[in-house]
Amino acid sequence: MEDLIQVAKKIKDLEIQGARNVAKTAIRSMKDVILNSSATEPDLLLKELLQAKDILFDTRPTEPAMRNSIRYVLYETKEAKGGIGATKEIAVKTCDKILKYFEDAILKIHEIGARKILSGMQIMTHCHSSTVTGILKKANEQGKDIHVICTETRPRLQGHRTAKELVEAGIKVTFVVDSAMRYMMKHLEVDLALIGADAITSEGTIINKIGTRLFALAADERDVPMYCAADTYKFSPETSLGFLEKIEKRNPDEIWKDAPAGLYIENPAFETVPRRYIDGLITEVGVFPPSSIAHQLLQLHPWMFDFKD
Amino acid sequence: MEDLIQVAKKIKDLEIQGARNVAKTAIRSMKDVILNSSATEPDLLLKELLQAKDILFDTRPTEPAMRNSIRYVLYETKEAKGGIGATKEIAVKTCDKILKYFEDAILKIHEIGARKILSGMQIMTHCHSSTVTGILKKANEQGKDIHVICTETRPRLQGHRTAKELVEAGIKVTFVVDSAMRYMMKHLEVDLALIGADAITSEGTIINKIGTRLFALAADERDVPMYCAADTYKFSPETSLGFLEKIEKRNPDEIWKDAPAGLYIENPAFETVPRRYIDGLITEVGVFPPSSIAHQLLQLHPWMFDFKD
Amino acid sequence: MEDLIQVAKKIKDLEIQGARNVAKTAIRSMKDVILNSSATEPDLLLKELLQAKDILFDTRPTEPAMRNSIRYVLYETKEAKGGIGATKEIAVKTCDKILKYFEDAILKIHEIGARKILSGMQIMTHCHSSTVTGILKKANEQGKDIHVICTETRPRLQGHRTAKELVEAGIKVTFVVDSAMRYMMKHLEVDLALIGADAITSEGTIINKIGTRLFALAADERDVPMYCAADTYKFSPETSLGFLEKIEKRNPDEIWKDAPAGLYIENPAFETVPRRYIDGLITEVGVFPPSSIAHQLLQLHPWMFDFKD
Amino acid sequence: MEDLIQVAKKIKDLEIQGARNVAKTAIRSMKDVILNSSATEPDLLLKELLQAKDILFDTRPTEPAMRNSIRYVLYETKEAKGGIGATKEIAVKTCDKILKYFEDAILKIHEIGARKILSGMQIMTHCHSSTVTGILKKANEQGKDIHVICTETRPRLQGHRTAKELVEAGIKVTFVVDSAMRYMMKHLEVDLALIGADAITSEGTIINKIGTRLFALAADERDVPMYCAADTYKFSPETSLGFLEKIEKRNPDEIWKDAPAGLYIENPAFETVPRRYIDGLITEVGVFPPSSIAHQLLQLHPWMFDFKD
Amino acid sequence: MEDLIQVAKKIKDLEIQGARNVAKTAIRSMKDVILNSSATEPDLLLKELLQAKDILFDTRPTEPAMRNSIRYVLYETKEAKGGIGATKEIAVKTCDKILKYFEDAILKIHEIGARKILSGMQIMTHCHSSTVTGILKKANEQGKDIHVICTETRPRLQGHRTAKELVEAGIKVTFVVDSAMRYMMKHLEVDLALIGADAITSEGTIINKIGTRLFALAADERDVPMYCAADTYKFSPETSLGFLEKIEKRNPDEIWKDAPAGLYIENPAFETVPRRYIDGLITEVGVFPPSSIAHQLLQLHPWMFDFKD
Amino acid sequence: MEDLIQVAKKIKDLEIQGARNVAKTAIRSMKDVILNSSATEPDLLLKELLQAKDILFDTRPTEPAMRNSIRYVLYETKEAKGGIGATKEIAVKTCDKILKYFEDAILKIHEIGARKILSGMQIMTHCHSSTVTGILKKANEQGKDIHVICTETRPRLQGHRTAKELVEAGIKVTFVVDSAMRYMMKHLEVDLALIGADAITSEGTIINKIGTRLFALAADERDVPMYCAADTYKFSPETSLGFLEKIEKRNPDEIWKDAPAGLYIENPAFETVPRRYIDGLITEVGVFPPSSIAHQLLQLHPWMFDFKD
Repeated sequence: MEDLIQVAKKIKDLEIQGARNVAKTAIRSMKDVILNSSATEPDLLLKELLQAKDILFDTRPTEPAMRNSIRYVLYETKEAKGGIGATKEIAVKTCDKILKYFEDAILKIHEIGARKILSGMQIMTHCHSSTVTGILKKANEQGKDIHVICTETRPRLQGHRTAKELVEAGIKVTFVVDSAMRYMMKHLEVDLALIGADAITSEGTIINKIGTRLFALAADERDVPMYCAADTYKFSPETSLGFLEKIEKRNPDEIWKDAPAGLYIENPAFETVPRRYIDGLITEVGVFPPSSIAHQLLQLHPWMFDFKD
Repeated sequence: MEDLIQVAKKIKDLEIQGARNVAKTAIRSMKDVILNSSATEPDLLLKELLQAKDILFDTRPTEPAMRNSIRYVLYETKEAKGGIGATKEIAVKTCDKILKYFEDAILKIHEIGARKILSGMQIMTHCHSSTVTGILKKANEQGKDIHVICTETRPRLQGHRTAKELVEAGIKVTFVVDSAMRYMMKHLEVDLALIGADAITSEGTIINKIGTRLFALAADERDVPMYCAADTYKFSPETSLGFLEKIEKRNPDEIWKDAPAGLYIENPAFETVPRRYIDGLITEVGVFPPSSIAHQLLQLHPWMFDFKD
Repeated sequence: MEDLIQVAKKIKDLEIQGARNVAKTAIRSMKDVILNSSATEPDLLLKELLQAKDILFDTRPTEPAMRNSIRYVLYETKEAKGGIGATKEIAVKTCDKILKYFEDAILKIHEIGARKILSGMQIMTHCHSSTVTGILKKANEQGKDIHVICTETRPRLQGHRTAKELVEAGIKVTFVVDSAMRYMMKHLEVDLALIGADAITSEGTIINKIGTRLFALAADERDVPMYCAADTYKFSPETSLGFLEKIEKRNPDEIWKDAPAGLYIENPAFETVPRRYIDGLITEVGVFPPSSIAHQLLQLHPWMFDFKD
Repeated sequence: MEDLIQVAKKIKDLEIQGARNVAKTAIRSMKDVILNSSATEPDLLLKELLQAKDILFDTRPTEPAMRNSIRYVLYETKEAKGGIGATKEIAVKTCDKILKYFEDAILKIHEIGARKILSGMQIMTHCHSSTVTGILKKANEQGKDIHVICTETRPRLQGHRTAKELVEAGIKVTFVVDSAMRYMMKHLEVDLALIGADAITSEGTIINKIGTRLFALAADERDVPMYCAADTYKFSPETSLGFLEKIEKRNPDEIWKDAPAGLYIENPAFETVPRRYIDGLITEVGVFPPSSIAHQLLQLHPWMFDFKD
Repeated sequence: MEDLIQVAKKIKDLEIQGARNVAKTAIRSMKDVILNSSATEPDLLLKELLQAKDILFDTRPTEPAMRNSIRYVLYETKEAKGGIGATKEIAVKTCDKILKYFEDAILKIHEIGARKILSGMQIMTHCHSSTVTGILKKANEQGKDIHVICTETRPRLQGHRTAKELVEAGIKVTFVVDSAMRYMMKHLEVDLALIGADAITSEGTIINKIGTRLFALAADERDVPMYCAADTYKFSPETSLGFLEKIEKRNPDEIWKDAPAGLYIENPAFETVPRRYIDGLITEVGVFPPSSIAHQLLQLHPWMFDFKD
Repeated sequence: MEDLIQVAKKIKDLEIQGARNVAKTAIRSMKDVILNSSATEPDLLLKELLQAKDILFDTRPTEPAMRNSIRYVLYETKEAKGGIGATKEIAVKTCDKILKYFEDAILKIHEIGARKILSGMQIMTHCHSSTVTGILKKANEQGKDIHVICTETRPRLQGHRTAKELVEAGIKVTFVVDSAMRYMMKHLEVDLALIGADAITSEGTIINKIGTRLFALAADERDVPMYCAADTYKFSPETSLGFLEKIEKRNPDEIWKDAPAGLYIENPAFETVPRRYIDGLITEVGVFPPSSIAHQLLQLHPWMFDFKD
């Protein structure tokens, strides 16, 4: 459990980042906890896992991929029939299944997403999402001639990462300040707006980097189709019970270090994009409207909705 | 004329900035040219002034206030009846009249604009406009309790200047990155969007800092009234003949100094805001809809439409 | 059966009101019919229940909660295997299950709905809905500082009941005429629009008190999120077959008693609100977009779609 | 002057109502003041008139027709050349001219407005405006077969007056509660929305009875053309200087007499309708877009913009 | 198999047309292949059927009804347990089931769709769809007094067929050029817009004749409800994997035979209509929002999503 | 006068077409009437001209250019001081002035309009307007590389004329059916929508070929700027008095010659486009918003508003 505590600290301190990365690291720690557990009864193992869950859930307000992964391990462990040996085996298998799921899901999304991209398209994105850059690189590998426009994404400038990654892949990239997003959407005649997601709610609302809803407004003004690429573990099942996703507020220093005394600085990290702006969610289980995701996952991942403990 | 050439160079090199400042400096140079002229005939003086005009018009693509001021001096000089003495007198008087006009106009706009602001209002602005900050400071001096939200305005960060100026004046100011403009418009319940203008066309289109139209989209989504404060010399009469205002593209270095090789960077300085987004123009001659400005100036400043030379 | 006929009459004459109340009273009568039945065969019992159904369905054009409840009793009775004793037992159990369902559902909706409400919010509602007032009172009990704005809701002034109930609960309430709904939405900076529903169609359309769509237009103009709180028994399964919900037209006297001769008075009681205006349905099974309700209930309450008799 | 003080009191106490009526009564009092004046110098007469102006302006926050009429008398009196006799004559003539203007203007508006109405049209109005009912009666007199839909207009029920007046004129009228305005706009397939105005601003904003903007939203949703009929004296010239029209808040008792203790009741009498909702202003000088009114009146009624005393 | 090759040729050459007709003809050929097959093992039969599938899939880019039908036969054949006899029997039964399904589905859609039509309605359609004309004729047979407005639908003038068919059925029909669709929508006060579909995607996008999205824009401007009537076999399951429906471009000669040399003529046959424009899909399984179709079919027709071979 | 009667007949029978052409032919006839007049008094000449006016006004419902031209001749003739000789001279001079005005105006519009067109633009138009094709040919002559998309414009196929004229001028032209206008606007990434006008009202409404408002809806959906090019004689001054422009309904045969008996065919020739869709009017007096045209012409062409006879 000490290792898990270390890992939790790293997640809290942003040393480990990226939704998938955080989730996988957490699950690897859970697996270690299971393998090293000296529990003699299924219930004792479960108790340990619940403890691990509490530590990991406590690291960050919004990490649906990690939360869903942990919830799945607990669900399968609880459902397991048999003694401690069989239960441990199922718990470990579930960890492995999740780790594999993430590997497979991202590849499927790249494949499905790349089909939406035609040669000659201008595609615009905001911030950095490895799901999005993966799709773009896949389309480029397929020989499609594409042009990507990306914003710098103040204050953390994640757009630098997006631009570098795509330029290195040999893709034509145009880079602009955030406030030029509408101007570019029009003057470069953007054909597709493509973003990632930090979380998705039961109402089909996307939660993504600050500026994404402005991006949606600009796409809407020109009737540019907007898609969100994300694996289904980004879904936040608690929202179906009315719980609200928290919007993280970051340090004002990120925006203006030597600001005048008395100035208020607001630094919200994310904002919500209502479902009406999203033409389709590109997930590992297919492309569909955001309004149907909750219901689809209720069938696909029923354990997501197991809120009992 | 050498002094004027020096002044023109400074305008070109952005050593002199701000629409009103540039116009006043240009007119002061014109006045010197008139006072120092050795012309013995009105026509010869006019020829000198036309030469001065060409030098000054050549400095920047979009400086309607300067252009209108120069055009006014030429118009009155041409219309002057009498010998060289009388003509010179009229030309100098016109220069003085223009310099005085700018002084008076800005005070009137502050007074009129401040009436639009009620105690308790949240007012949002983008970029820096001394016309806008003047209105806000006037309202503050009148004892109105206001809260101003301003954007940093990448890449040149003119929002820093706006924030400093208002904080120094004792106004409550909240500062955000550009991409948070919609988020703040909603979450701080903005009551009024207030911007300046670099130029205004005969169709009532406003030309202002990049990001202003995104700002307009965000205000429109919440039905927040949006006003543009500017003196009438910002009007570009050439647009009535179909000429387009040029959008200055600045150096990519302003955005990303050590960008990866092969990356395209676009740095447009301005963008257009159609008249439907502007509830009212606040000018020294009153508050009115942008659609009526061309016609109003045709009566008020007929010399603006004297395109003959 | 005479008691049931009495009850049906009271429902028809509006002596019994409120969707849940009507449904529960009807089911209690059905239960009495079952308990008092002298039927010796399951088929005879079913015949009696079908007769009861016809009497109750005939009372009002739009009472989906009652209709669904009755339909459920008939469905389970038909499906029952065994003799008259076992069948009666199942029929009675189903009645009890429904009565319990209504109790539980309303509590769950209050709990889920209250999570959507944050301290400091201004919430606006139209007409009276005990589901809505229950959520507001729950949020108030949780110590959240809320301000509710409610409309008078002509001609029957149900807003009086809403206002009284909330003021008694210690909630700050502002009361306005119906035509001020947009003005208040803007000037009191409403954060949330919350309504009940009389019926919900398979297309996700909400049917609610006249004025609700105006309310939706006003919320939409300000981008105020709008939620509808209702239990799933409000769903009208017949609409999936293309049947239209009837809009009840009430007595003109409710509007103007001594109207001049020759004047036409229209008094429609309800109107429809298309799904695009509703951010989410708050139900006992969670919060989700109105577009998914038909499909969700197909799985959750398959008996709703049993139209065979 | 005592008579004028009496008249002013009646205006204040709403014993005299209706914009035109108030203006005409005020001007008749002004005329009496002039006729009975013992002033021996034009300046002394002017002083008396300024005093009268102050008394009358003080009666109500929003009465542009009265204000403009008084302003016109003062303007012409100030401009008069000659002794006290000639000045008095001009002052009296101006009063008479204004009284005649109101007579003529209303007839011209009826004539122009009636041309906009075709036989077979469904026309909807809100509240009561004698300008609007005059147009409708004129069209009816011309033999056009029209159907008028009018709202009751809570809390003062001015719709009763509209309905009675039109029914008496033999026009087919349908009467509804305010919240049914959208429902009727759609279900009775309204062809034209026609309203009056209490005031018009320099931005082309209409100020009219609470509910008018909801009415505009409903008309806009169905693309129903919306016209505002008003004489040009309804224009508020102060708004061109940034002054805001005040929205009168009336007594809560008008809404709910025996409201529960602790309930807040808001009773705003008017609301603003932005120019984009108004297809045309129907005035005595023609039909034109609201955006051009300020500029048109600057030429037509320059005295309106004489703010000097 | 030769017969099937002949049939495939006729489909390719447009000798066989209409989605349902094409599908049924293809399935009849498949049935013949099965009945005449000399395969001695289930696997050999399957191989033959896969070959048939390839031939038929190759005929046209967009024929989801045919593709789904063929896919269903293959799915059931693969799933069959037992020897060649049993397998053949199942394969034949599936063919018969599909042929019957088409018969039943169209009748159900007519019945459900006719319920949406009330006596007195003006209904507008574009192009020709036998599903749509069937609904209209059903409503007419039910004694409903309806008025249908239809467009000519250049370049192939399918509107002629719609008009003739409905006039022959005794329905009142008004016929207009395509560009008058908005004018008629307004001036004939259309109550319902009703169209068919060539294909439906997993995002709920409708693909239909060129001009349908203009039709949707015009309906939206007037808030006229728009429904799409189609059987569920029109759903294109490949779109859930990101595959795009191809838009067929037809021969320029259809538009202008003796066009001047050098002129480019574009003749796209279809266009897409996003789900936000469609109030409801009228299918044989009920009326529901387009956003839920993919998920509904995943349960109803799981074989549609069997992409493995 | 017999010649004028002949000319009037040709105008009525559409032998003479095109607004400018009709106006010029009418004025040439008026000039002949003046030159051949045997009137001995100005009043007698005026009487003859009024007679001519009545004959010409009677030819077509909507020909504002002709009506304005005739009105101008009458106005100047009435205003003339002096005997019959001087009056005749002024009348003839006015005819010549008008004929010259048309020549000059069209050249100015071409010049101004061409400035709005940049090399590389995709420009879309509907129907045929020689004002529009003149602008496009002017831009082409200036060496600008443009691509024009034009619709066929059923039922009279005026698009054929537009296409031929531009192809002959060496311009790249793409031709489509009317219903593909939105599809092309998007897929060819149109930068500018450019249309002519048959008439312009005092509210700034454009009256143009049927389909133009659909075109406006499609441009609006993509935020494509839309301009209308027309000389100011297209303005209909009667509309300022509330008169409505009549929409001509043409022969159904133009649409379908052998239509089935009992079919209603509607063939409206024009439709209205509200001012909000038009970014600017391109006229011989400059580019300005449609909302200001009435007021501008009141100053520029006061005779247009002389309705007295």
